[in-house]
Amino acid sequence: MITKNIRVCLTPALFNLYSDRNSIVVVVDILRATSAMCVAMDKGVKKIIPVSNVEEALDYKGMDNHILAAERNGKVVQGFDFGNSPNDYASADIDGKTLVVTTTNGTKAINIAKKDHRVVIGSFLNIDSLSDWLQTKTDDIIILCAGWKDDFCFEDTLFAGALVKKLKDSGGYTAESDSAKTASLVYDNAKDDMYDFLNLSEHRRRLASLNIDHDIHFCLQSNITKVIPIIEGDALVSLK
Amino acid sequence: MITKNIRVCLTPALFNLYSDRNSIVVVVDILRATSAMCVAMDKGVKKIIPVSNVEEALDYKGMDNHILAAERNGKVVQGFDFGNSPNDYASADIDGKTLVVTTTNGTKAINIAKKDHRVVIGSFLNIDSLSDWLQTKTDDIIILCAGWKDDFCFEDTLFAGALVKKLKDSGGYTAESDSAKTASLVYDNAKDDMYDFLNLSEHRRRLASLNIDHDIHFCLQSNITKVIPIIEGDALVSLK
Repeated sequence: MITKNIRVCLTPALFNLYSDRNSIVVVVDILRATSAMCVAMDKGVKKIIPVSNVEEALDYKGMDNHILAAERNGKVVQGFDFGNSPNDYASADIDGKTLVVTTTNGTKAINIAKKDHRVVIGSFLNIDSLSDWLQTKTDDIIILCAGWKDDFCFEDTLFAGALVKKLKDSGGYTAESDSAKTASLVYDNAKDDMYDFLNLSEHRRRLASLNIDHDIHFCLQSNITKVIPIIEGDALVSLK
Repeated sequence: MITKNIRVCLTPALFNLYSDRNSIVVVVDILRATSAMCVAMDKGVKKIIPVSNVEEALDYKGMDNHILAAERNGKVVQGFDFGNSPNDYASADIDGKTLVVTTTNGTKAINIAKKDHRVVIGSFLNIDSLSDWLQTKTDDIIILCAGWKDDFCFEDTLFAGALVKKLKDSGGYTAESDSAKTASLVYDNAKDDMYDFLNLSEHRRRLASLNIDHDIHFCLQSNITKVIPIIEGDALVSLK
């Protein structure tokens, strides 16, 4: 049996040290972009186009069957119907539509990774499905934490640790880098009460005024969907 | 009483996100550059000139009273008398000399930080003296982990956690960033047997063939010197 390697890239600013053109990249922005993408696709969105900035998103305005989402600093950008709250997508009529989205961290990480890599979207919401699929592949894995404005963040590192554990427990994986081991340490310390643990985080304090407690609880749920968004060309589609 | 802020920059690649022209920067490269610098200065070196590359170090060759050190990938560069092993300096005749040094990670971090900041050198070897001095200042602190070739590393993060704890325990400091909290978590998990903990690290494996166990034990000792190397112009001198 081959042993596949898992590496954890703690912020997009370090991705140039990890990019190898071969590994599958799991992009994670737990609070909240990649969680919201999983919900949107679960609710029937056919395609997600991640764009780098608000202007680019507005190019799609008025196009048939397209819905537009933009988030900056945790808030929906003025003039947009959707932000990065999973809740935005849970109850909206989005079946069969194309979602054009730009967020502070998540879409940037996707766009960096997709240049040279097969990219899938990870969150606690689809973690088992994602882990099961990765195990069917022979590829090494890079877990790319979207972080916060290029810096390290707790919640993405926590998820990286959870995914590392799941894959290692399945057998056939190694994760010996210092960053992978630190992610595992964060997860081990947080796993019994992730919500409580994230109360320590900068992001939690940053968004305290936005009253997103509900979203945080939502994003920390495991396995509410089996969808795996995957890059096909420039857009994410649901893995068949 | 003012509350001073401590931030932890996990790799030099992220320093542009931290640089504020005001904070004192503590540069740390535990294995082994900043540990060796503390020993060299303790043994009487008058001045340390950190240079970026081997060619620049060679410009000083033959100059009176100068000794030259160069390390790449854990080894002394051919043609140089010193590398980054503290042991190199412990028994050499270096009293009153100027040390010109280039290392894989440490000197790069110093040179990035010194552009806009007051820079001091940290290691376990001088941690109490350093912590005591920092407490006499009103400045915020950035602990800059030299890492490994711009990526995250365990041992510098471990030291950052130890220094954060020491300063917080003294009162008057806050360290609320995700990176500072992760460094504290690493330290809490490692403190009872740091050597054993570092057996997990990439650097430990990377240098296994170089037989530097003795150096690792040496670098994990606390408070064998009171010297604090500090930047004055382009060189490090001993803080008076």
